[in-house]
Amino acid sequence: MDIKGFQFSAVEAAIKKPGRKDLALIFSEVPAHACALFTTNAVKAAPVLLSMDRIKSGTAQVLVVNSGNANACTGEQGMVAARETSCLVAEGLGVSDDAVQISSTGVIGVQMPMDRIRAAIPAAINGLSSGTLDDIAQAIMTTDTFPKMETRCGQAEGVSYRVAGIAKGAGMIMPNMATMLSFIITDAAVEPDFLQQSFSRAVNRSFNAITVDGDTSTNDTCLIMANGMAGNPVINTESSEAVTVFEQLLSEVLLSLARQIVKDGEGATKFVEIRITGASSDADAKRAAMAVANSSLVKTAFFGQDANWGRIFAAVGYSGAEVDQSRLSLYFDTVCMAQNGIFAGNDAEARGTEVLKQKEFTVSVDLGIGNGTSTVYTSDLTHEYVSINADYRS
Amino acid sequence: MDIKGFQFSAVEAAIKKPGRKDLALIFSEVPAHACALFTTNAVKAAPVLLSMDRIKSGTAQVLVVNSGNANACTGEQGMVAARETSCLVAEGLGVSDDAVQISSTGVIGVQMPMDRIRAAIPAAINGLSSGTLDDIAQAIMTTDTFPKMETRCGQAEGVSYRVAGIAKGAGMIMPNMATMLSFIITDAAVEPDFLQQSFSRAVNRSFNAITVDGDTSTNDTCLIMANGMAGNPVINTESSEAVTVFEQLLSEVLLSLARQIVKDGEGATKFVEIRITGASSDADAKRAAMAVANSSLVKTAFFGQDANWGRIFAAVGYSGAEVDQSRLSLYFDTVCMAQNGIFAGNDAEARGTEVLKQKEFTVSVDLGIGNGTSTVYTSDLTHEYVSINADYRS
Repeated sequence: MDIKGFQFSAVEAAIKKPGRKDLALIFSEVPAHACALFTTNAVKAAPVLLSMDRIKSGTAQVLVVNSGNANACTGEQGMVAARETSCLVAEGLGVSDDAVQISSTGVIGVQMPMDRIRAAIPAAINGLSSGTLDDIAQAIMTTDTFPKMETRCGQAEGVSYRVAGIAKGAGMIMPNMATMLSFIITDAAVEPDFLQQSFSRAVNRSFNAITVDGDTSTNDTCLIMANGMAGNPVINTESSEAVTVFEQLLSEVLLSLARQIVKDGEGATKFVEIRITGASSDADAKRAAMAVANSSLVKTAFFGQDANWGRIFAAVGYSGAEVDQSRLSLYFDTVCMAQNGIFAGNDAEARGTEVLKQKEFTVSVDLGIGNGTSTVYTSDLTHEYVSINADYRS
Repeated sequence: MDIKGFQFSAVEAAIKKPGRKDLALIFSEVPAHACALFTTNAVKAAPVLLSMDRIKSGTAQVLVVNSGNANACTGEQGMVAARETSCLVAEGLGVSDDAVQISSTGVIGVQMPMDRIRAAIPAAINGLSSGTLDDIAQAIMTTDTFPKMETRCGQAEGVSYRVAGIAKGAGMIMPNMATMLSFIITDAAVEPDFLQQSFSRAVNRSFNAITVDGDTSTNDTCLIMANGMAGNPVINTESSEAVTVFEQLLSEVLLSLARQIVKDGEGATKFVEIRITGASSDADAKRAAMAVANSSLVKTAFFGQDANWGRIFAAVGYSGAEVDQSRLSLYFDTVCMAQNGIFAGNDAEARGTEVLKQKEFTVSVDLGIGNGTSTVYTSDLTHEYVSINADYRS
């Protein structure tokens, strides 16, 4: 699918082990409206600090992103490296420094190999005519086992436009503001304020509703660029149908990417949707859902295909949400495991165990005290997760 | 060591697999001053609800405790079971119902096998003349690999007394008020208000400063009984030296038990002390310490003996504590890994890796902005943890 006015390039800069592309560019032929959400971690990587400052302008034209090194906990030298990288890209493309967004992922605390990055940038710029978005999705992978991409087509007053996104995930996934890395591009013409609002809402329903291991990274970034090259009448809050369609498509792209991240969670063998209903508020529902989704005991039970529903009630109980234990009920898919706080019986146990043998299932908890709801997505906790993270740097 | 006026008994009630003692009594020949701290989980086991109500009197004479079944998420039937169990014990010992504290640990959501418990109580009562505290420490084990016990002797105005404690831990360990189960007995005569205060302080410095997996159980209980049979002048807030000594001994017993729980954390191969200094408050220091101690990424790196210090800064960064990343420093034992937020160099890497090869080490983070401090204890996250919890009920 051709997203008008965007060009892509990915090259080997030898930041990672040889044989893997690890430096990539997304270039819009014209300045794009842009907004981004960044990690809430107080320890922020150098490229995050630089990009946060630049995005205030509301526009961007280039993204330069590398994997293999997070450029986090690298102090002033890291900031110099991020500035120089973006400067070289800006010069090569004839755009202003401020139009360059920069993003990094990989190991923390190691200085960037600037000699190799300097050497690779010209090739990255030259490659823009021939690259694809899929190349970028590949280049930003770290422990991911598959590239994550999603696209949608829409129409605004008869003019077609496209929305496409890529993401990387795997570990250190429990975003508060954004996921590890996700970049969304669209050739739709979108009014900047509406772009910001619809993007924030879509992120909250997608990337902010997933967790793999409860760790929030130093580099989380979710960026959207809308360059308007589709030529549609500007989508804004007055053009109601086009607005609805655009936000719907954007949400679909983000939710698809978020689900792909969970499915590819480090070592994951299960994809689990956690639905909380009947909470005293949506915020309480989210607290309960995240406690279940992050519990090591719940996640190992999923891995073991063990219908140990008591651990789920225990997690709801310590979540901080308002809970009356005599009103709790729990379902694995459509199988009622417990009602009014107590076990539904041995028949439920057998049927619940069958549900947990699937690769994907839903865990629903009704708190039974209000109308608050929340849905989050999580994976299981496996031997493979331990292996990956015990040996990540070796 | 003989703790005057206390008797012990443990029997097989076949709540667990055959061949393991799983029902135990601690009996004080006279009513004891008692206080207890219970789980903050909103989902509380039946015995917790019963004991919380009874402890308000400030006295207790008997503890009945079982392993193999938590009697949690068991509704009204669970409450009936807890009441009947304590009633049978009270009758057999000729004490009032209210003098019986009751505690359970094991699987959640299964009704208690009351026929077997009824049948076992007479033998438990008969065994009181011949049992030891060590028998109880054995009987309360679930996935623990060794019994946890600690004792101290003290003197109050020339009269000797003893403080002894037992605990069980292993999984579902991140107490907010108490650990899974810990029972402390002393034959010292202690004024009740001072007992409560010194007990709370000691629990905060010990059981509330450990974490294995971040899960807070439905059954956490820490109980102390002081029966005064040592015959010492009552220790109260006016007798300053005796007060200091008693609180010191009590703290030592609790801290020893807490450390034993972490060392026996499910699958643990490392015992790690996390020390935070330079925080803007003690509360902030504890937030940072707990974030590091609970991070799956940090704990798997400990298991892998990987000096991946960036993950520790990342955890501090998302802890919610006030953090200035340019002021952070980090030590593994005495090896400086990072200063002013950046890496101390490859020599540090090699030496830090050597520290992580030890079975016990200290991770110190100086936030560099204030005088707040906190110390917590944690273990690593291993393949064995996943195995134990994937298969817990099978």
